[in-house]
Amino acid sequence: MSSAAPRTTDQDHLWSVDEHLEDILATVRPLEPIELQLLDAQGCVLVDDVTVPVSLPPFDNSSMDGYAVRVADVAGASEEFPAVLEVVGDVAAGQAELVQVGPGQAARIMTGAPLPPGAETVVPVEWTDGGLGEGPVAGMRARSLAPEGATGHVHVYRPAEARAHVRAKGSDVKAGDRALEAGTVLGPPQIALLAAIGRGTVRVRPRPRVVVMSTGSELVQPDEELRSGQIYDSNSFALTAAARDAGAIAYRVGAVADDAEILRSTIEDQLVRADLMVTTGGVSVGAYDVVKEALESVGDEDEAGSGIEFRKLAMQPGKPQGFGSIGPDHTPLLALPGNPVSSYVSFELFVRPAIRTLMGLEDVHRPRTTATLTADKALTSPKGRRQFLRATYAEGAVSPVGGAGSHLVAALAHADALIVVPEDAESVEPGAEVEVVLLG
Amino acid sequence: MSSAAPRTTDQDHLWSVDEHLEDILATVRPLEPIELQLLDAQGCVLVDDVTVPVSLPPFDNSSMDGYAVRVADVAGASEEFPAVLEVVGDVAAGQAELVQVGPGQAARIMTGAPLPPGAETVVPVEWTDGGLGEGPVAGMRARSLAPEGATGHVHVYRPAEARAHVRAKGSDVKAGDRALEAGTVLGPPQIALLAAIGRGTVRVRPRPRVVVMSTGSELVQPDEELRSGQIYDSNSFALTAAARDAGAIAYRVGAVADDAEILRSTIEDQLVRADLMVTTGGVSVGAYDVVKEALESVGDEDEAGSGIEFRKLAMQPGKPQGFGSIGPDHTPLLALPGNPVSSYVSFELFVRPAIRTLMGLEDVHRPRTTATLTADKALTSPKGRRQFLRATYAEGAVSPVGGAGSHLVAALAHADALIVVPEDAESVEPGAEVEVVLLG
Repeated sequence: MSSAAPRTTDQDHLWSVDEHLEDILATVRPLEPIELQLLDAQGCVLVDDVTVPVSLPPFDNSSMDGYAVRVADVAGASEEFPAVLEVVGDVAAGQAELVQVGPGQAARIMTGAPLPPGAETVVPVEWTDGGLGEGPVAGMRARSLAPEGATGHVHVYRPAEARAHVRAKGSDVKAGDRALEAGTVLGPPQIALLAAIGRGTVRVRPRPRVVVMSTGSELVQPDEELRSGQIYDSNSFALTAAARDAGAIAYRVGAVADDAEILRSTIEDQLVRADLMVTTGGVSVGAYDVVKEALESVGDEDEAGSGIEFRKLAMQPGKPQGFGSIGPDHTPLLALPGNPVSSYVSFELFVRPAIRTLMGLEDVHRPRTTATLTADKALTSPKGRRQFLRATYAEGAVSPVGGAGSHLVAALAHADALIVVPEDAESVEPGAEVEVVLLG
Repeated sequence: MSSAAPRTTDQDHLWSVDEHLEDILATVRPLEPIELQLLDAQGCVLVDDVTVPVSLPPFDNSSMDGYAVRVADVAGASEEFPAVLEVVGDVAAGQAELVQVGPGQAARIMTGAPLPPGAETVVPVEWTDGGLGEGPVAGMRARSLAPEGATGHVHVYRPAEARAHVRAKGSDVKAGDRALEAGTVLGPPQIALLAAIGRGTVRVRPRPRVVVMSTGSELVQPDEELRSGQIYDSNSFALTAAARDAGAIAYRVGAVADDAEILRSTIEDQLVRADLMVTTGGVSVGAYDVVKEALESVGDEDEAGSGIEFRKLAMQPGKPQGFGSIGPDHTPLLALPGNPVSSYVSFELFVRPAIRTLMGLEDVHRPRTTATLTADKALTSPKGRRQFLRATYAEGAVSPVGGAGSHLVAALAHADALIVVPEDAESVEPGAEVEVVLLG
């Protein structure tokens, strides 16, 4: 039978969308963690709990620009009867050696500077004469204008309670506290916290490297001349962009001709930089479907689970699909159909969750919701197939964009959602509640 | 007065959050457009309408693997009485020279291949015997197994209407149609469409280059040893990450010591790669607030609108703020306060909209919603100041995280929203409806 065309009886089994997805998610494993510089870890998933090594703030410090004083020395102070204190010097942020504040004394202190020994509280500079003897001021003189620092006397016009305007050591986080939990996605505020506790590097799952390759002898690169029978390659661009959008480092290989040997050697060549490979085209029942031809035989017979399997899915668009692993590292490979919309929908349903699984994310799927169908006429759908229709969604209502034809890439560019028509529905009336995948 | 401390009367004016934001958005202008390779334009805003130069698909083509035939030749065909047609050859995708299909003839055709002259419709291979004479097949024989291509005769078991399984020229988009509108943000489906119509480059507003610099002599880089009075620099990491998150290409300069000359020369040095500069720290009323000192005098007197203005905002956290433009290109600069939470909240409210304005986006702000306050006790807020409290939001309810202290970076790392307490509110009871900024 090897030289014959496949018989209907061989390939009758239709996989459901959920079975295919389950197979992918059961096969793809999160990448091994690596230690990355903080800013390189943005968007990545933390592998271990992070413990606070040193309390924050690490010392009592002032939350205002003002004067560090003793509480008793400013008790009862008012504009009419100010407390007059001897200024013993400045305390700047980052200063290691601190002046001692004795009874009747004040140290001029900057925001973030350590509370000097002897001082019990801080009065903001706006509650004082700033040492100028001319009533309340709005701020301090810049050091460049008075490089000698604070001297002389300061008039304080209001009292302050103990530890007023003082940020206590450990009031943000304490040494030994858990700063962040394993599994946290590192966004800007999490990176802020890691930096604040002194972590310059962090152990995360790296972004997966995804190689995207379209196939088809009819494909021409954009900006080149289109000859008879040719079309422009759009899949390799669309899926490279979509893989980045999902969090991957994506490499676009471009279009490979319909030649099984060239395809096989290109894939083998690219494996070295791939945590995941994605191809488009060549997976159906045609005589020139070389992806299927090239990959059906790549499995190592000694290795369980190796090799690419080609299937038919109970799905529209996106019926023919290939999935498996390839090469010495069992790199997962998804072979998507070649129609632009089929490949894009397949990417959203199967490749995106695979990428996010490689990243170690818990939430790998696009959000879904239900919405009321707004349409001129009923949607029709083939029985036994789950249909995904391009649509626009807003405030609980969803409208189809363009037709059901899998080549309508123009409609895709104006869609922000997919309407899901279940396998058992052959039509959906306007006004019905439908399931919607939000493409975000 | 130049050597004196600022007087209260000079700086009494409190700017509202909205006034400050309005000033920023009135000053910052979208960047000049440039022509970028498609994949470099991902996430950017299209500057011009894009017109379709050539209809898609550019020719009638098959949507199935099958046989291109004449309608009359398969009329009435059934499994019992198949139509038997002479196979005149293959039509593969990308093939320029096409066979002619005459009466009683069929050409084996692949998905995407041009409908050959003479053919009127396509019958899927599954409706035929694939030329093997042994009943219906599930697919074609791979070309590698039968390199001579299709010959002999094919049995067709079902009739087909005219133009069945044919994608008509121009059925997706027509030459002259508007493919995408100016202002469109280029995501994967828009990149797909541009590639499909042959556009290899596109004119967009580039991602702004944002230079982030923290200031403070107390700041130490993560992973270095913390000495007495020092803390780790977290702002430069947080805001670099946040700027990237907003769409910018961000450069982290790191911490600069509290020295006006060093700061001024560092800023001048960085201007060459900045479309926007962001500093943190040194903007308040202390004697060592060098950002204020260094930048208050940089304005070119000959140029209207040049220079940085420092203000007090009716806001908590984030009261002291600086904004203006600097250098020969009038590069906008936002000088944020130094407390990690103050700077982060200021970034969200002022810098993010500035970055997105530079990108030419219409929607520059974080989404807002209203939610029911869930809390143990009433929130208190200073009268006359708009307060922004870190919070977590889920399904219409919002709960504060951590206290109001502007140094609580740990709480920030667990927040996904900000509660907005308006200027006229001094307390908000649990159960009240509050405005919420979603940090996404």
